[in-house]
Amino acid sequence: MTILINGQPETCIDIQDRGFQYGDGLFETIAVVNGVCPLWKYHMRRLQHSCEQLQLNSPDIDLLSQEVKKLSAKKKRGVIKIIVTRGSGGRGYRYPENENITRIVMIHPWLDYPASNWQEGINITQCNTRLAQQPALAGLKHLNRLEQVMARNEWQDIKITEGLMFDTQDNLIEGTFSNIFLIKNSQLFTPDLELSGVAGVMREFIIQQARELAIDVDICQLRENDITQADEMFMCNSLIGIWPIKQFNDSSYAVGPVTAQLLEITQQIYSSPNV
Amino acid sequence: MTILINGQPETCIDIQDRGFQYGDGLFETIAVVNGVCPLWKYHMRRLQHSCEQLQLNSPDIDLLSQEVKKLSAKKKRGVIKIIVTRGSGGRGYRYPENENITRIVMIHPWLDYPASNWQEGINITQCNTRLAQQPALAGLKHLNRLEQVMARNEWQDIKITEGLMFDTQDNLIEGTFSNIFLIKNSQLFTPDLELSGVAGVMREFIIQQARELAIDVDICQLRENDITQADEMFMCNSLIGIWPIKQFNDSSYAVGPVTAQLLEITQQIYSSPNV
Repeated sequence: MTILINGQPETCIDIQDRGFQYGDGLFETIAVVNGVCPLWKYHMRRLQHSCEQLQLNSPDIDLLSQEVKKLSAKKKRGVIKIIVTRGSGGRGYRYPENENITRIVMIHPWLDYPASNWQEGINITQCNTRLAQQPALAGLKHLNRLEQVMARNEWQDIKITEGLMFDTQDNLIEGTFSNIFLIKNSQLFTPDLELSGVAGVMREFIIQQARELAIDVDICQLRENDITQADEMFMCNSLIGIWPIKQFNDSSYAVGPVTAQLLEITQQIYSSPNV
Repeated sequence: MTILINGQPETCIDIQDRGFQYGDGLFETIAVVNGVCPLWKYHMRRLQHSCEQLQLNSPDIDLLSQEVKKLSAKKKRGVIKIIVTRGSGGRGYRYPENENITRIVMIHPWLDYPASNWQEGINITQCNTRLAQQPALAGLKHLNRLEQVMARNEWQDIKITEGLMFDTQDNLIEGTFSNIFLIKNSQLFTPDLELSGVAGVMREFIIQQARELAIDVDICQLRENDITQADEMFMCNSLIGIWPIKQFNDSSYAVGPVTAQLLEITQQIYSSPNV
């Protein structure tokens, strides 16, 4: 059993579900380590915040927790995906009169990547597809992901691991499936996500950890030339932790000390899951 | 039988379908009149264009046509909805290696509205939710419709029929489920949709008809003060034809001569379906 829809094992969804008709919903992608989800509290906080922003009734968190435990109980490694939609109904775009959210919990196999992604870093490219500025949806992990789909499919070269996305006003925002941090003079910088992008759980964790280590963290507007001037850079998400960036266009980067320090901290999540 | 998925009667969709996971697909909403779809050619042209822009393989149009006929054969009035998605598969946002599009054809009952919507016009409001500027997706009837969902649910007053949406740079774009035309000095104006909005089939039909009647049509940037200065205004879509706008904030509008002329032409679609 790998999928529960409203608590029942299922493999298909009602075609009238607004998640299908309009992308009217949100999701979480959560690492399972030795049967537990180390960043569970961060994911649930984001899920509840996203539900609020989308005017969706949040699912019962204890119920979600039970269902996730059911699917991930004996898994050394796995990926839990939770999807919440506004369910079926409502005339056109109008909310249904009696909201009946759809609650989906599924488990996927853990994805293996080369050890060099963490040890030496990755090569990245720049995407042509821009992220639109949309304050009503910025930061949220909603189901409207065509921008990421189009961006990710701009390159086929398997030596390129991730692509950077800029918004329509040329601000650096994030990767297609990760957030980005730059380091300059031992300070951390990461793009402001008030208008575009997804506020990642790993991004939040890293900001917290860095501040506890008295590393300055500036959440701000970043541009292309900030990349070329950076001493170090890394991408992050809740499944891979941190991948240093080794190469971007003509610029090469070593795995710097700040990156190495945060890499060590984040890697502990995937071995000792009590966070 | 009201739903065909890849030619088979079904009511539910594979949960891994990318249309559900990411809104990775598009749709058409088509009026059925006495067993035929009067604007079929317009809808198919838009569908094929949208498939191209989203790098989706277009479904076979003859096959679609047969399936639509099967569902709409004896219907005096109905609404056909066609959904095309990129199907299941692909790692994360990446396209599947072997693309297997999902082709859905369904029929819904015709929606009845008060005759006064056409005869006297409708009251409309202004939405706070903005449309983001996204050239990669502008004009297309894709499945990422959270902006319209959020905008439509800003008002509950049943006396308000539609809400106007502006983009993040304050340009007037469209209604939540319709396009808009303004008339000034017997000239037609409608917003440019190069950066936002959905290029409606009825909008296209009206532009064509107007030009055949030697009415000037300007597709251009429009702002809020163009609304207050308009002599006449109307909303349009492929299911309702034209609804004159009677009231917007403090401004009242009569059903003017250009609106009346185009209203008469478009209403013929819903009685004599040979277009």
